Amino acid sequence: MSEFARVCVDAMGGDNAPAEIVKGTVDALNESDKIKVWLVGQQAAIKNELSKYTYPEDRLVIVNAEEVIDPNEPPVMAIRKKKDSSIVKGLELTKDGTVDAFVSAGSSGAILVGGQVIVGRIKGVERPPLAPLIPNVNGVSLLIDCGANVDARATHLVQFAKMGSIYMEHIVGVKNPRVAIVNIGAEEEKGNALVKETYPLLKNCPDINFIGSIEARDIPKGDADVIVCEAFVGNVILKMYEGVADALVTVIKKGLMSTLKSKIGALLVKPTLKKTLKGFSLEDYGGAPLLGLNGLVIKTHGSSKSVEIKNSILQVIPFKEQDISGKISSNLSQTD
Amino acid sequence: MSEFARVCVDAMGGDNAPAEIVKGTVDALNESDKIKVWLVGQQAAIKNELSKYTYPEDRLVIVNAEEVIDPNEPPVMAIRKKKDSSIVKGLELTKDGTVDAFVSAGSSGAILVGGQVIVGRIKGVERPPLAPLIPNVNGVSLLIDCGANVDARATHLVQFAKMGSIYMEHIVGVKNPRVAIVNIGAEEEKGNALVKETYPLLKNCPDINFIGSIEARDIPKGDADVIVCEAFVGNVILKMYEGVADALVTVIKKGLMSTLKSKIGALLVKPTLKKTLKGFSLEDYGGAPLLGLNGLVIKTHGSSKSVEIKNSILQVIPFKEQDISGKISSNLSQTD
Repeated sequence: MSEFARVCVDAMGGDNAPAEIVKGTVDALNESDKIKVWLVGQQAAIKNELSKYTYPEDRLVIVNAEEVIDPNEPPVMAIRKKKDSSIVKGLELTKDGTVDAFVSAGSSGAILVGGQVIVGRIKGVERPPLAPLIPNVNGVSLLIDCGANVDARATHLVQFAKMGSIYMEHIVGVKNPRVAIVNIGAEEEKGNALVKETYPLLKNCPDINFIGSIEARDIPKGDADVIVCEAFVGNVILKMYEGVADALVTVIKKGLMSTLKSKIGALLVKPTLKKTLKGFSLEDYGGAPLLGLNGLVIKTHGSSKSVEIKNSILQVIPFKEQDISGKISSNLSQTD
Repeated sequence: MSEFARVCVDAMGGDNAPAEIVKGTVDALNESDKIKVWLVGQQAAIKNELSKYTYPEDRLVIVNAEEVIDPNEPPVMAIRKKKDSSIVKGLELTKDGTVDAFVSAGSSGAILVGGQVIVGRIKGVERPPLAPLIPNVNGVSLLIDCGANVDARATHLVQFAKMGSIYMEHIVGVKNPRVAIVNIGAEEEKGNALVKETYPLLKNCPDINFIGSIEARDIPKGDADVIVCEAFVGNVILKMYEGVADALVTVIKKGLMSTLKSKIGALLVKPTLKKTLKGFSLEDYGGAPLLGLNGLVIKTHGSSKSVEIKNSILQVIPFKEQDISGKISSNLSQTD
């Protein structure tokens, strides 16, 4: 096994590619000597960006891929047709073990579909969940699943709980992470059919620290570390985070400009306010891992700047050192 | 038909009963002479509160009910057993036509169950949805359904869309309200099984102005007037609104206290900030109507203060004048 955490980075993915992606890669390489990066994408564009920086050249490989998958392309078709795209090539390097992980800010659909089809699931894993870290007033929680496969079954949610617990414990460093299921009330008898079926399974699962239901209102308070839900619900939660926060910032800004007194006040509070809101933004926690695959796939925001790319790359170090895939494999194969 | 909008108000419901409930009732009576109120609850407590105010006594009736349903009681049992409770008596007055509407800040479960069991559905209505108004950056939208009956069918959602459109047009005054279905992407082929089944039904429904899918992120922006979803999802959306807003206010306050400069700024921005956040709070829009019943049932927040009670009572005037129940009845019976 290589001593490096070997990461393939999609140089062409996201709104700010390739400039911010290359910058994030260079920053990661300069920050940690445990990292080796394969930058995949249009070679000329990558080289052009790289020429702006100094970096350890022996830990950077360029892999040429001429095609780019657009976020609006139907994902299944894109994965099938664009064999010379940065996403397909990156996922293939993960599949064949050249790298430990693939990081991309590109098409969510293509990454999720390609992750399953090309990289493949760990034996025993029924569905690979997408699990972003979301901020709360005290730190972060893992929201699992926000992926593309909706209408999950109860057994899927139990696996999400286990994989999420392993991730929070060994990557984020939360001891005995509290697992809760998203519900419309705190009582065990509440919920839709899926939640009612899942609840007793989680309650009787010896591998996790299940604390019961969590109402959506309590998620931003940080009342649980691993927040288990079906992907449609997870998507709504994630996007409400963004939407409500953005709307509040809009109305607050408008409000602050409404009187002379508050305008002066606004000047004084602006730096702190900006810092505070940044700490509560979704974008600073690195990308969301797609768990349960034969290799780590990390999806970052389409709007990723270099810092998110850098953080996502660095996330691969503990993922490899802690052998998360091995832990998921042995944990899920025990009981399934 | 009585010339008054006749409203029964649950004097015993919510955290601030009976004081704030009685105050809200008095305020409504003093604000509009189109209102007549039946205050139901423990007579002695009601009279005690009423003694603090002057109000038009000829438009206030006290109905004694000795029992109180606790929010933690199992609702079906509570409705069945506590015949002398304010909720059961209030719903019975609505059922028998003594009043046009029942307003309560009490047990959501009991009100939702009792609304269906005691008041009963309008012929043709398959499920009565709970439909709160939620703030957005430009005004309000109607979120339908946030009720107790999860796992809805596609035909239910179509009825929600129709009822919500009638409500937004005739009560809130939005011409040709834009109807959207909550989804995890904008494209027609996205979604879970329920959304995929519902989408074409809404698209082909001639009575509504269907604009397609809405992602949760765009709800607070005000991109639709009637936001259709299944109750579990609606509950998550509603509670994320509260949760994210509360969490943001917490971190902002903490942030503002972190430096001397921002502390001074905070003093200057505080009044404006408070006003702005109040305008974006869920509690100032009166209660949520439970639509599709033989009479209007309005559920207000458990934490309702007098202003929410007053607004909920006044809401009954247009509901009666516009004959919303009649409109729902003729619209839904046409096509079902």
